[in-house]
Amino acid sequence: MTLPNTAKPAILLTSQTTTTTASAASASAASASAAAVAVASLGSNLNSSPFKSSARSYADIAIERNPQFKKITKQDIDHFKTFLEPQSILATTDIGGTIDEAKELDGYNTDWLGKYKGRSQVVLRPKSTQQVSKILKYCNDQKIAVVPQGGNTGLVGGGVPVFDEVIVSLGSMNNIRDFNETSGILVCDSGCILEELDKFAAGHGFSMPLDLGAKGSCHIGGNVSTNAGGIRFIRYGSLHGSVLGLEVVLPDGTIVDNLGTLPKDSTGYDLKQLFIGAEGTLGIVTGVSIVTPPRPNSVNVAVLGVSSYDAVQKAFRKVRRDLAEVLSAFEFWDTRCMQIVLDHNNLRSPLEEEHPFYILIETSGSKKDHDDEKLAECLESLLENEIIDDGALAQDETQVSKMWSMREGIPESLGKWGPTYKYDISIPIGVLYDIVPEMANRLEQAGLYSKDPKTYESASKDDPNVVVKGVLGYGHIGDGNLHLNVVANRFDKKVTDVLEPYVYEWVASHKGSISAEHGLGLMKAPHLHYSKSKVIVDWMVRIKNAFDPNGIMNPYKFLPRTTTSSSN
Amino acid sequence: MTLPNTAKPAILLTSQTTTTTASAASASAASASAAAVAVASLGSNLNSSPFKSSARSYADIAIERNPQFKKITKQDIDHFKTFLEPQSILATTDIGGTIDEAKELDGYNTDWLGKYKGRSQVVLRPKSTQQVSKILKYCNDQKIAVVPQGGNTGLVGGGVPVFDEVIVSLGSMNNIRDFNETSGILVCDSGCILEELDKFAAGHGFSMPLDLGAKGSCHIGGNVSTNAGGIRFIRYGSLHGSVLGLEVVLPDGTIVDNLGTLPKDSTGYDLKQLFIGAEGTLGIVTGVSIVTPPRPNSVNVAVLGVSSYDAVQKAFRKVRRDLAEVLSAFEFWDTRCMQIVLDHNNLRSPLEEEHPFYILIETSGSKKDHDDEKLAECLESLLENEIIDDGALAQDETQVSKMWSMREGIPESLGKWGPTYKYDISIPIGVLYDIVPEMANRLEQAGLYSKDPKTYESASKDDPNVVVKGVLGYGHIGDGNLHLNVVANRFDKKVTDVLEPYVYEWVASHKGSISAEHGLGLMKAPHLHYSKSKVIVDWMVRIKNAFDPNGIMNPYKFLPRTTTSSSN
Repeated sequence: MTLPNTAKPAILLTSQTTTTTASAASASAASASAAAVAVASLGSNLNSSPFKSSARSYADIAIERNPQFKKITKQDIDHFKTFLEPQSILATTDIGGTIDEAKELDGYNTDWLGKYKGRSQVVLRPKSTQQVSKILKYCNDQKIAVVPQGGNTGLVGGGVPVFDEVIVSLGSMNNIRDFNETSGILVCDSGCILEELDKFAAGHGFSMPLDLGAKGSCHIGGNVSTNAGGIRFIRYGSLHGSVLGLEVVLPDGTIVDNLGTLPKDSTGYDLKQLFIGAEGTLGIVTGVSIVTPPRPNSVNVAVLGVSSYDAVQKAFRKVRRDLAEVLSAFEFWDTRCMQIVLDHNNLRSPLEEEHPFYILIETSGSKKDHDDEKLAECLESLLENEIIDDGALAQDETQVSKMWSMREGIPESLGKWGPTYKYDISIPIGVLYDIVPEMANRLEQAGLYSKDPKTYESASKDDPNVVVKGVLGYGHIGDGNLHLNVVANRFDKKVTDVLEPYVYEWVASHKGSISAEHGLGLMKAPHLHYSKSKVIVDWMVRIKNAFDPNGIMNPYKFLPRTTTSSSN
Repeated sequence: MTLPNTAKPAILLTSQTTTTTASAASASAASASAAAVAVASLGSNLNSSPFKSSARSYADIAIERNPQFKKITKQDIDHFKTFLEPQSILATTDIGGTIDEAKELDGYNTDWLGKYKGRSQVVLRPKSTQQVSKILKYCNDQKIAVVPQGGNTGLVGGGVPVFDEVIVSLGSMNNIRDFNETSGILVCDSGCILEELDKFAAGHGFSMPLDLGAKGSCHIGGNVSTNAGGIRFIRYGSLHGSVLGLEVVLPDGTIVDNLGTLPKDSTGYDLKQLFIGAEGTLGIVTGVSIVTPPRPNSVNVAVLGVSSYDAVQKAFRKVRRDLAEVLSAFEFWDTRCMQIVLDHNNLRSPLEEEHPFYILIETSGSKKDHDDEKLAECLESLLENEIIDDGALAQDETQVSKMWSMREGIPESLGKWGPTYKYDISIPIGVLYDIVPEMANRLEQAGLYSKDPKTYESASKDDPNVVVKGVLGYGHIGDGNLHLNVVANRFDKKVTDVLEPYVYEWVASHKGSISAEHGLGLMKAPHLHYSKSKVIVDWMVRIKNAFDPNGIMNPYKFLPRTTTSSSN
């Protein structure tokens, strides 16, 4: 194993790979020229996704438009024109828009994977909280349904319309309102892009407390509304802790100014917490106050090879103790993930031999030589104690990027290999990986899969039989977050029936969560009961009804749909 | 300045001083034999407090018992006996209890400062969540008011009855339910004592993410219910981030099992957040799931002297950057606090000269020599750049304890000096200390105070004139939390009128919070509007009414009282 070379500083730029991916996909979604189609027919559009990652599609879920919602008319557009600038409104031609507007609208109707597509006739792009308030008050009075949209980087269809909901895009609200150099507390509009905020904070020696692949496009308001996790979670924790205040517009237009900048405030129920992860179903977040931690000066990355999931856990226990305050990531993936990612990206493993599991460790600290020493000692001890079998330490920035790309390149590599059934689940750490071999066994017993990788791995979508090419697992050990991926030669009900509802039942039986960090949106709303008891779901419905009695905010999503039935 | 002596390990036991104080006061409260007296007459009991710390008393607030609540009878006790063991019930003699029970009940009726005292006739000490459920269902059906009680260490009268509410003490629910060695996630009953949990976690190499003076008595359920802050807040953040799940019994007896152990879970509104800081007004927390961080191996403490509050801020900015991941406390106090605390405890300052402000820095890390080096370099640089004027580094455990006792001994020392008006407030860091000289000026202009310490400092309560002996400030810079203390020769309306509502108005005008970490309870409920807008207070009331339509949970507190008027 290679030990740290302190002469070469390792400055981290972790997310470049996925950022590029996100931006590219986003651009591709925005330029998609396919006409808006009815929700129920979207199954055929699945292959337009560069990731081909959907295990469920609209075709699986029959939803009817709620007839109580008013259909938008030219008169409504005329009303919006009384307080919004012309360029803040994009409408279809039948209600007064131009052909160019209609074309641009298409990007707002489609999610960035190209998996979900609505048919909204109008996008409103308010520039102030007051404008958001006027929009919502009017829509609430008129019973016009609304979908709030941030950077449109969601993975569960939460940020695009299902039918003709008015899209309220927050992209034009992107000002930094305040930054305190001493406390590092940042107050900004909800439409600010995460990466821009991180650059701003960096200029003052701070960093945003969250980071994720889509950071080049996603908005802080969307992060808050989806309770985004990401790769700094293990270090800086959840947004429930780092968000200090929110400004929110309720469906009736009331502006709730809860935009405090106080780390400590014990005066009443912490209402803002309800809006963190509410996915725009209770109102629209327009302002965010968030604490930014000091920016680390030094970053190290190492990739380790281990022989079992048990060893992954042992390594985590030791690393968490030894590296304690400087540990900033502990990711893992299995050998099949590694094979695919190396193969599809023409990369060479940093380790000489193959290992059943791989671990990526990142440290971030204020003093490079201390971090180097801690990491080197920890790795030596892991080797001596035979917890790990091999390891490599990045020697420079390029190696840091390459190592991260092995972990972050997995979703894209699997997507290129074949249509991928994806499950983003939280499970107690002790049994986190168990579902992967269990699912492989189930699929093998059903005659759909063979553990011999040679058997099916080159099957194409045109093969007469549907086959599973791989059952793989990777994720964030520190956060108890597994990404279970099942790659097939094509999407097929036979595979779905083996996977579901078994995977949700299994997660439920282990007190896990069916959505660790991607939210519920349209995709997982019908499965909420696997993660939350009837008592809790009933309370969610009561809260929803209290804040949004007309149900105009982001309908058909998040909560179980009474009007939904499965056509599959 | 003295540099670190690495030969002597500095193992930290920070809170011993205040723990002892808390326990002693608790015991004294428990053994107090004074008969329960009517709320409105409690003003005369103020001096029984060892801290003499109250600025407001029941005498200031006229409250009437809500006649809709049923008065408890022997039949009710008989009902409780059907599912509770005899030793789980303490009642007054008129409803079937013994004289010993009535005596023991007195401790539950009185808060630990001896400032608030109710006249409940019964304490129930359930041993299981099922028993709590049966108690609440019965009380809700019968419209019997309830006050949940943890370790009874609150400072705002939130945990003791106001009139004859049934006290539900969680002290008999103190089992650890689960601990995961890998993730450090702890699941326990809400009646577990914080210090016991910390000892348990220590045995596994972890520590509780919060620490406070009352840790020897306070319960984790009480910590959660009051959103406790404390001295590890700057390092591990708020309970809104570290609490992963709660088990809660609603007023109608419904058990809400939201006791997940998942760091990441994005499935719906995060209902548990409403109960963090709800002070028992929505239901009773019976179980807590919380993430415990790895226990630091090494702790260093230094005390610094600086010339101005501006220098305190400059030092904080530098220290936060240089010590980043190892910084675990940054406390400050003014010169008058230092004089009093040294004087009253026969301590010698670790610095040769007097300074306008003092700072205490603590580091906690995984490797002692690294921490020592970081701290030494940081302190040298602070001196070289003339941000600080002097500094001393603890050389051993005794010095660590002594330095902490200078900060933690302030409340007790002030209490011994004279009756103290105390304000626990959050204020944006830039203006945090401004209220102290401003208040001193106001008091001087009112003829109640002189900045010459000789003028009034020895005034006793029997002096013909009421005078203010000191206006002092100390607190947690990192959390923006100031403790403003005004010490007088006796409590007097003349002083109160200069202080209030000015202090609340000032806090409100700076977007501060009237309660940083002590909660609202009975004391601050009438002042909530200074920290929260009408819109937010209205939503709080709606949430309260939704969960507790009969209003039986911890009445008269937390929310503004419609039946309250000020007699002052």
